[in-house]
Amino acid sequence: MTIWFEDMPVGRVERYGAKHVERAEVLDFARQFDPQPFHLDDEAAAANPLFGRLAASGWHTAAMAMRMTADHWATNGARAVLGGAGIEDLAWLKPVYPGDTLRCELEVIDARPSRSKPDRGIVKARMTVFNQHDEPVMRQTSVVMMRRRLGIDHPSDA
Amino acid sequence: MTIWFEDMPVGRVERYGAKHVERAEVLDFARQFDPQPFHLDDEAAAANPLFGRLAASGWHTAAMAMRMTADHWATNGARAVLGGAGIEDLAWLKPVYPGDTLRCELEVIDARPSRSKPDRGIVKARMTVFNQHDEPVMRQTSVVMMRRRLGIDHPSDA
Repeated sequence: MTIWFEDMPVGRVERYGAKHVERAEVLDFARQFDPQPFHLDDEAAAANPLFGRLAASGWHTAAMAMRMTADHWATNGARAVLGGAGIEDLAWLKPVYPGDTLRCELEVIDARPSRSKPDRGIVKARMTVFNQHDEPVMRQTSVVMMRRRLGIDHPSDA
Repeated sequence: MTIWFEDMPVGRVERYGAKHVERAEVLDFARQFDPQPFHLDDEAAAANPLFGRLAASGWHTAAMAMRMTADHWATNGARAVLGGAGIEDLAWLKPVYPGDTLRCELEVIDARPSRSKPDRGIVKARMTVFNQHDEPVMRQTSVVMMRRRLGIDHPSDA
C-alpha cells in the first residue's frame, strides 16, 4: 500500500518509534559530525550547565528521528515522498542522553497541491520527539514534497 | 584564544570549510539514518525528479555543515559555546551529490544577553552552504547559547 499526498490530510496523526540511544552511537556520531567536548567527553559534559553529563548532538537526535520515520514508512505504508524541502523550525528542548529511549509523534498541519507541478503536493508536519519520561526533547516542522495519487507520472515508488 | 559571546557581534561574517562529499559516506549515512531509496540506490535516484542521481540525505548535509563549523572553531579560536537551542529555518535548496565539495558562509544576525542567566548570551547566525559551483545547497538560521566573557562562571572552555 502506498501513501500518496492525498492520504496525508491536515489533522492526520502518526505515533511511532522506539529508539534506544546507545552511548557508542552518541560518541560515534559526535566524532564524525559534531566533535564538541560535551558530546565526546564526560568531564566536559559535566562542566556544561545545559547538559550535566554526556549528551547526544542535536543533529544526531534529528537523524535518529529521521530513521524512526523511515522505519515507520517501511512498515506502515510506503510514502510517495519525493524529498524534503526544509524544516521551518527545530527546537532542541532537552538533552538526549545515552540510555534514553526516543519516540515520535507527528501531525499534518498543512497540505497543498503544488501550483507549478501537477504531479506533486507539499505536506507540512509538526513532529515532537519524546524521551522515555514523556518529556519532549525535540520539536520540528518539516516540509516534504509528495507525489499525488492522480499525478501524471507514477514510477513505482521511487 | 577563546571567542566569547561578546566576540560575535551582529554583522560578523565567517567563511570556512572544504568538505569533499564521498559516495561511501553518503551511502553510509543513508543506511544509518535516512534509508530512503533515492539516498541508497542509483536507479531509484534517477527516477526521482528532484534528484536525478544519487543524492545525500539533507540531514547528512546539515551534519557535514556542523562538522565544518566544529573544525573551523578548532582551528580559528575555540568558541565558548554552551549548546544549540535550535534552527529557525532550514532549506535544502539543491541536491548534494557524491563528488561535490561544500563550504560554509555564516553571518551573525542577532546577539543578545540572556535575561535570566547573566553568564550567557544567545547568538543567531544565518549560514549558507555552497557547492563547488558556488550554488547554495542549504541555508539555515541557527540559535546558539554562548558564555559571556564577563560571566560569573568560566570553566576552561568546557
